[in-house]
Amino acid sequence: MKIQVALDRVTIEEAIILAKLAEPSVDWIEVGTSLIKEYGIESIYKIKQAFPHKTIVADIKTIDNAEYEFTMCYQAGADIATVMGVSPLPTIDTCANVSEKWNKKMMVDLLNTSSSSQKQVGIYRNAIFCHHISKDEQEKEGKSLSQINLRQYFHSDAQIAVAGGINPASAASLLQMKADVAIIGSAITKSADVAKASAEFQNLFMSRGNV
Amino acid sequence: MKIQVALDRVTIEEAIILAKLAEPSVDWIEVGTSLIKEYGIESIYKIKQAFPHKTIVADIKTIDNAEYEFTMCYQAGADIATVMGVSPLPTIDTCANVSEKWNKKMMVDLLNTSSSSQKQVGIYRNAIFCHHISKDEQEKEGKSLSQINLRQYFHSDAQIAVAGGINPASAASLLQMKADVAIIGSAITKSADVAKASAEFQNLFMSRGNV
Repeated sequence: MKIQVALDRVTIEEAIILAKLAEPSVDWIEVGTSLIKEYGIESIYKIKQAFPHKTIVADIKTIDNAEYEFTMCYQAGADIATVMGVSPLPTIDTCANVSEKWNKKMMVDLLNTSSSSQKQVGIYRNAIFCHHISKDEQEKEGKSLSQINLRQYFHSDAQIAVAGGINPASAASLLQMKADVAIIGSAITKSADVAKASAEFQNLFMSRGNV
Repeated sequence: MKIQVALDRVTIEEAIILAKLAEPSVDWIEVGTSLIKEYGIESIYKIKQAFPHKTIVADIKTIDNAEYEFTMCYQAGADIATVMGVSPLPTIDTCANVSEKWNKKMMVDLLNTSSSSQKQVGIYRNAIFCHHISKDEQEKEGKSLSQINLRQYFHSDAQIAVAGGINPASAASLLQMKADVAIIGSAITKSADVAKASAEFQNLFMSRGNV
C-alpha cells in the first residue's frame, strides 16, 4: 500500500520542510486544497521543484472549469489531480481527457457521492478512486472509513485510495480492506516527530506484507 | 435584480482593470474560482482593496474544511463566500456558522444538487441560493437556466442567484423568473467594450422595472 502524505494548513515553505522529513517513508506528496486555495498554483510548482522525483498529487478538487484547472495543475508539475465525484459528468469527462492528453492520472474524490454516481464514475479505467470521509464529517458526525465497502462499485483492478482521519490505530484495517493508497495528513504532519511518524506508518504497512 | 460580475481566467491585475470598467453598472464583484485557485487568497484581498465599497463575492466553492476556508475569505475582505450544495451537510452548516459569526453571508452553489438536497439546504435563512449551470455543462450538454424552476424548493423570500452563460438574449427571461442576482461572466468580461456591455445589462434590467 502506498502512502500519500497530505500537506494542509501550513505555508508552502513549512509544507516543504514537513515533506522533506516524511519523504523517505512516503510514496506520494499531496499539495492540499488549503495550500492551493491559500497560495495558488505556485504551491504545486514549488513543491514539485522541491521533489522532482516524487509523485505530486494536486488536490485541486475540480468541480467545474475542468480543462483550465487540470491543465494548470499539470503545467505546474502535478502528476495526479483531483476532481470531485459529485461534479456534473461532463466535468469528470474533461478531467479524464486532459489527464490522458498529458499522460497523467485523475483521482476522483468520492466525497458525498451516491452509489449510482460511484457506478457512473467507475467507467474510467485510468483513474484512482478515493473514498473520503471529510474533515467536517469526521469532526461533526464521527464518520469513519471502516463503514465503507471500498470496491463495491469498482472493477476489481481499480486503484483505490482512502482518506479521512487515518491514524496508526485505524491504519491496519486499511490493509484488510485492500486499499492501494492511504492518504495521511495530520497523523504525520502534526506529529512531534514527522520522520518517525511516517516511518511507523511505512513499517506498519510493510510488516503486513502489503506494500 | 442585482448584477454580479464574475472575474475568471485572467490575472489579478487584469481582473481589477475589468472590474473598474464594469463598476458603475454592477452591484457585486466576484473573485472567480479560477483566480483563487491560480493566485490564492491574495486575489480576494487585492480586489477588496481596489473596491472597498463594493460587495465582494469569493467563489471559493468550499466542499470540505469549511471553517478554514470561509474564515480565510472573510479575513481577506470577502462579504460573501460560496459553498457547494453537494457538500456534506456538516460543511454547509459550518459555513453558515462562520458567516453568521463574521456577519457575512454564504452563497450556496446548487450545481448538480438533487431536489432533496435543495430542500435540505433551503433551511438556511441567511443564505443566497445560486442555481448554476456550469461552464462544462453548457459547453458539453447545452443545458440552460431556462429549464429551472428557481423557487421550487425555497421559501418565498429566499434570495436567488443564477449563473451560467447569461447573455443579453437570455437575460430578459431571468426577470420573469424573478431571480434576485444575475451572475454574469464572459458576456461582460470578454466583451470588446466592458463598460458598455455591463451598462447594457443594467439598462435591460432597469427598463423592466426590476432593480
